[in-house]
Amino acid sequence: MTANTPAPAAAESEQVRSDGRKPDELRPVTVTRHWSAHAEGSALIEFGGTKVLCTASVESSVPRWLKGRGTGWVTAEYAMLPRATNTRSGRESVKGKIGGRTHEISRLIGRSLRTVVDTSALGEIMITLDCDVLQADGGTRTAAITGAYVALVDAVEWARQEGLVRKSATVLTDSVSAVSVGILKDGTPVLDLPYAEDSTAETDMNVVVTGSGDFVEVQGTAEGVAFTRKELNTLLDLAVDGAEQLAVKQAEVLAE
Amino acid sequence: MTANTPAPAAAESEQVRSDGRKPDELRPVTVTRHWSAHAEGSALIEFGGTKVLCTASVESSVPRWLKGRGTGWVTAEYAMLPRATNTRSGRESVKGKIGGRTHEISRLIGRSLRTVVDTSALGEIMITLDCDVLQADGGTRTAAITGAYVALVDAVEWARQEGLVRKSATVLTDSVSAVSVGILKDGTPVLDLPYAEDSTAETDMNVVVTGSGDFVEVQGTAEGVAFTRKELNTLLDLAVDGAEQLAVKQAEVLAE
Amino acid sequence: MTANTPAPAAAESEQVRSDGRKPDELRPVTVTRHWSAHAEGSALIEFGGTKVLCTASVESSVPRWLKGRGTGWVTAEYAMLPRATNTRSGRESVKGKIGGRTHEISRLIGRSLRTVVDTSALGEIMITLDCDVLQADGGTRTAAITGAYVALVDAVEWARQEGLVRKSATVLTDSVSAVSVGILKDGTPVLDLPYAEDSTAETDMNVVVTGSGDFVEVQGTAEGVAFTRKELNTLLDLAVDGAEQLAVKQAEVLAE
Amino acid sequence: MTANTPAPAAAESEQVRSDGRKPDELRPVTVTRHWSAHAEGSALIEFGGTKVLCTASVESSVPRWLKGRGTGWVTAEYAMLPRATNTRSGRESVKGKIGGRTHEISRLIGRSLRTVVDTSALGEIMITLDCDVLQADGGTRTAAITGAYVALVDAVEWARQEGLVRKSATVLTDSVSAVSVGILKDGTPVLDLPYAEDSTAETDMNVVVTGSGDFVEVQGTAEGVAFTRKELNTLLDLAVDGAEQLAVKQAEVLAE
Amino acid sequence: MTANTPAPAAAESEQVRSDGRKPDELRPVTVTRHWSAHAEGSALIEFGGTKVLCTASVESSVPRWLKGRGTGWVTAEYAMLPRATNTRSGRESVKGKIGGRTHEISRLIGRSLRTVVDTSALGEIMITLDCDVLQADGGTRTAAITGAYVALVDAVEWARQEGLVRKSATVLTDSVSAVSVGILKDGTPVLDLPYAEDSTAETDMNVVVTGSGDFVEVQGTAEGVAFTRKELNTLLDLAVDGAEQLAVKQAEVLAE
Amino acid sequence: MTANTPAPAAAESEQVRSDGRKPDELRPVTVTRHWSAHAEGSALIEFGGTKVLCTASVESSVPRWLKGRGTGWVTAEYAMLPRATNTRSGRESVKGKIGGRTHEISRLIGRSLRTVVDTSALGEIMITLDCDVLQADGGTRTAAITGAYVALVDAVEWARQEGLVRKSATVLTDSVSAVSVGILKDGTPVLDLPYAEDSTAETDMNVVVTGSGDFVEVQGTAEGVAFTRKELNTLLDLAVDGAEQLAVKQAEVLAE
Repeated sequence: MTANTPAPAAAESEQVRSDGRKPDELRPVTVTRHWSAHAEGSALIEFGGTKVLCTASVESSVPRWLKGRGTGWVTAEYAMLPRATNTRSGRESVKGKIGGRTHEISRLIGRSLRTVVDTSALGEIMITLDCDVLQADGGTRTAAITGAYVALVDAVEWARQEGLVRKSATVLTDSVSAVSVGILKDGTPVLDLPYAEDSTAETDMNVVVTGSGDFVEVQGTAEGVAFTRKELNTLLDLAVDGAEQLAVKQAEVLAE
Repeated sequence: MTANTPAPAAAESEQVRSDGRKPDELRPVTVTRHWSAHAEGSALIEFGGTKVLCTASVESSVPRWLKGRGTGWVTAEYAMLPRATNTRSGRESVKGKIGGRTHEISRLIGRSLRTVVDTSALGEIMITLDCDVLQADGGTRTAAITGAYVALVDAVEWARQEGLVRKSATVLTDSVSAVSVGILKDGTPVLDLPYAEDSTAETDMNVVVTGSGDFVEVQGTAEGVAFTRKELNTLLDLAVDGAEQLAVKQAEVLAE
Repeated sequence: MTANTPAPAAAESEQVRSDGRKPDELRPVTVTRHWSAHAEGSALIEFGGTKVLCTASVESSVPRWLKGRGTGWVTAEYAMLPRATNTRSGRESVKGKIGGRTHEISRLIGRSLRTVVDTSALGEIMITLDCDVLQADGGTRTAAITGAYVALVDAVEWARQEGLVRKSATVLTDSVSAVSVGILKDGTPVLDLPYAEDSTAETDMNVVVTGSGDFVEVQGTAEGVAFTRKELNTLLDLAVDGAEQLAVKQAEVLAE
Repeated sequence: MTANTPAPAAAESEQVRSDGRKPDELRPVTVTRHWSAHAEGSALIEFGGTKVLCTASVESSVPRWLKGRGTGWVTAEYAMLPRATNTRSGRESVKGKIGGRTHEISRLIGRSLRTVVDTSALGEIMITLDCDVLQADGGTRTAAITGAYVALVDAVEWARQEGLVRKSATVLTDSVSAVSVGILKDGTPVLDLPYAEDSTAETDMNVVVTGSGDFVEVQGTAEGVAFTRKELNTLLDLAVDGAEQLAVKQAEVLAE
Repeated sequence: MTANTPAPAAAESEQVRSDGRKPDELRPVTVTRHWSAHAEGSALIEFGGTKVLCTASVESSVPRWLKGRGTGWVTAEYAMLPRATNTRSGRESVKGKIGGRTHEISRLIGRSLRTVVDTSALGEIMITLDCDVLQADGGTRTAAITGAYVALVDAVEWARQEGLVRKSATVLTDSVSAVSVGILKDGTPVLDLPYAEDSTAETDMNVVVTGSGDFVEVQGTAEGVAFTRKELNTLLDLAVDGAEQLAVKQAEVLAE
Repeated sequence: MTANTPAPAAAESEQVRSDGRKPDELRPVTVTRHWSAHAEGSALIEFGGTKVLCTASVESSVPRWLKGRGTGWVTAEYAMLPRATNTRSGRESVKGKIGGRTHEISRLIGRSLRTVVDTSALGEIMITLDCDVLQADGGTRTAAITGAYVALVDAVEWARQEGLVRKSATVLTDSVSAVSVGILKDGTPVLDLPYAEDSTAETDMNVVVTGSGDFVEVQGTAEGVAFTRKELNTLLDLAVDGAEQLAVKQAEVLAE
């Protein structure tokens, strides 16, 4: 972990974050595998106060545009319970339409997982990852991706047991996890931002990384002030280290 | 508990239900109060495999049609996660409209809670009960009502602490809980039906009962064969007994 | 009619309702059979000032989920003209969504009728009952069920004539009708509430009853104060008597 | 009636329409004024088998864009019951959107009535004309306009009685009615087409005419073959004559 | 041009319109054929400041209700960019529904083009004309029809080259164009109204005319005062002349 | 331009792209400023075959949540004409909902522009950038951002002339432009991808850069194979160079 070189004691005391973490420290991560009695794969993942229920549902039919090609599909839907946040927000089902943010994150999750799936090895089945945020405290999309991967592994295994997927097929080509990084108002680059930091950060970046350490998605956004190439590099260092720790956690949980 | 007279051993062995319960026995009930870090009141309630997250959100404004009357409002929204059930069902937010069943249950929960609330004692605030089914195994609406009452009590107390409700005002005039009862295919009347029983029952009834044992709602539906006055009476006996046990549970949880 | 025991003259004068009826008296009921020139079955039913046009449409295809099972379906859609009520309410088509109340009643009507239909005897046809309230004065859903049954009988007969249903098949296993009952503010239990009574009643109950006197639906709702088991029993007595009179009326109309 | 020059007996026998009418003859017209117990004005109008219920609702507020100008508004909504026609069509409320035809006709009715209303004399009130087709047999939009005018007259009078409109104000500057005309497949120009003729006509035209005989709307559409200037003139002759008869009918009904 | 008899010099000077045109004069018309790199046919048409992009898309499948009949279909969709007009109007996609005006014009364009198409000669293909108003200054629907015809001709030719339409088949039976005419506030009847005139005109009429000079659609609307038969005749004269000039323009463009 | 070092002749011949460009070469860019007669600012921008009409509309009111804060807002809406692409896609207005991609891009454009706007210097006005893709050939979102900046500058100037913005206020703190970069199937990193390249690229990245060369947005997506840190760096080099050329172009156009 290259970015982890401990700062000298004096400097460190200045960098302490509102929740006492070091800049390059993740919040406590817990993954409750097999949370759901019904889904083919599932995980309740927690990044500190953020709790996301990820279920993987296997259906033996693919979207119309894929029919007859002998290849499968993986898709995702992200949503938040109305009171997952500090202030209640109206239900999208009641409003009758899905907001832009919801759409964006659903697409991000689906794309991220598909990068590590060989859909042709999957056969004509569809796996839907539902990521429902039960409680939000920043980093809901990164927790969702990280948890959804665990649910996906179990769903693929289930499909294999059921004979829907060939015994020997390599469906998953790698693992995938995600973290947020950002630059706080005072200029400090930090890893895994809770809501309090995220809502005031100058720059916000979500990075999706494979188990081998390559990038699947890099989405950096300046919230007020544009960021320099140097800042971007520091953020990427933090992200790669964080994702590495999450990959270890995923492996541990899946080894149980 | 009048309907509880134990049947003779022989008969009893015949009546054993798929999950081993007696006809007049509730499934294990657990209530996790203060589940949410954000909501003013909350409870995760479980009736066996049915798990419903109930949050109560207090807003200091009422619907337009109530403005300026000095009286409050209590409303509810019920929803199910897509994979709460055995087979994934499409999200209502994605479909762009709320189904009839969802509408019906949301209205039932709101009405049931309002019966034990003196909205004029509440002042001009609105409390929204969000009841989200995380996992479904029959009786989701009755669990929702029973759990929402617990969340509501805490939200009213929060509003009192915040000075939104007068110290001395009696907002809640009674407690309220709900159970399902039904007549199985073989004619046995039973209490608290899991999905396996519910989906094949001849008659299905949801009963909402106050702490004092009176009825708030009685909704009985013949699914195939109409039911007699005598059967209706037996079902009401079972329901009143079940609701009494739930009221005891609610009181215990709120006394903690 | 057990609940009909005439009260002593003195008491009776106290119980007289706003429209002069006795507590256990229905409003005048008229049924205009074959109202529509197009529908396979139709009836314009009036319960006092409530006027509901019920049409039954036969289509030779069933919903997708029923295809290939050799069995039919009966469904219903309820709606109100915008100025059926005292104050104009916006059209649901203009709003772009159906309200919860509309959904709830449509489902109730469909379920009620299906209880007396042997859908397997129907063959693969679908009968849709459209119940449009032209003028509303309380009891629109009960009038709709009662009128829809008449339209349904004619549609089934039409289908038989057309050879869509076997000559000898018993499609309708019983008749069905519905009434509202309730407890007025002064505590009087009454039958068939017009809007003026319905909007101020303490308890409101809709009861759907077969020709044989058994229950298809019992939906009782406390609007303010919960109701006791004793009150429930009185209301059920009133409802069964009212439904019996409606069954007689249906038989008369169908015998013409 | 200039276009009415009787054809020689022989020719006439050839021109007889499917319902036995002469080319320039209206179907029987009946208007049931005050049909609704609730609306401020109402009329059930019948053009042969076409039955349209027209209600006029007065509201003491105008659309936002008119507020504060001291002027009123008249608008209309047209709709068809699902089984008004020979084949059931899906409800627009269920589909969640209004079709183009419905939109078009609603706008036509509103525009037609506003031409004879001095909205500045109306004060800040809005009158909504709901025209619901209970049974359709061609000419539903022309029946709707003709009936809506009757309902509008009564609603304006009601508003005057209520003091919402000045006693002396001339709100209605003329009367208005509408008829359809068209050219049959065999080339015969005819007045007031029932569905059987309308669905096969070469040209279809709806004409809205004031009591003084001027045009409010002329909407002619070639369904297959374009029409000549001469044909247009013949159709306009027929329309003006038909509208004159309807104006007489309106006056009679309003004089009762 | 029969209605074109020049007025005496004196009168003429009085009739000069805000943009200096004579009453019977079209605005400059330009047609940029083959504007789109993708569509099978396309034209950017300008009537003065009104600019409409018309594309014709050929799809080798017809709407469900036409399947298997061996006949094709031509349809149209009209829309306006949000800032095509002087004041920005909200997007219909964002609102989630199409307005009545948009619906009405889309239907008009489709109907107008179908009058000159022999859909049975087309085979089972569908041609969609998209008419998007990039800038609006009155007469957008008439420009759309006139430009869509050009795009349609090219799309039909493309389909013929592709072998989708028989070499010898006469698909287009005539040409079609459209103009607006109206009566200004001062009583002057004029041709081709820009927004400034259109928004204050007493009467507004859109006329769709074939190359042979017959009528496809005549839609005249009194905006305030009803119009007389004589005025209608003058307007029709102006329209026929204007359409004749447009037909010449179309022929020139298609001859290039 | 560091990445521009010309490759040796031999290598170069291998790298030639389908349209003959070098890997680090933009397509021809043209900007037609003041395209619209109505909008306060506008530009028709072309990146090769991609044509986007950008209009800026100034409204003197802000969204509700900003009211009374004395600060303005800049927002954007992106859309594509149905036949902007090679195959016609259904209109979002007809479908009744906006797709995820549209939502995502609208949000990206709005965010990108706000980074260079001091909304507090703007006063309580809202500027909406409508970016409508008339023809698409890859890079529509980057062309939209680049063109929208030009339209925004003119709209701000207009607001200043109208006295809506203080004479001396610095509203725009920098310029902003955007380019796409990507890694082709053969591993070549390239700048400004047309559709043919974009649809088959391994990695696709959109980069939004300020005039000073800092990052506003970095959105990199692996379409099949994850990308390495080294590849990311090469893509960022290409993007910064491309954006610099676009900034020069913007300055030239605005200097006219």
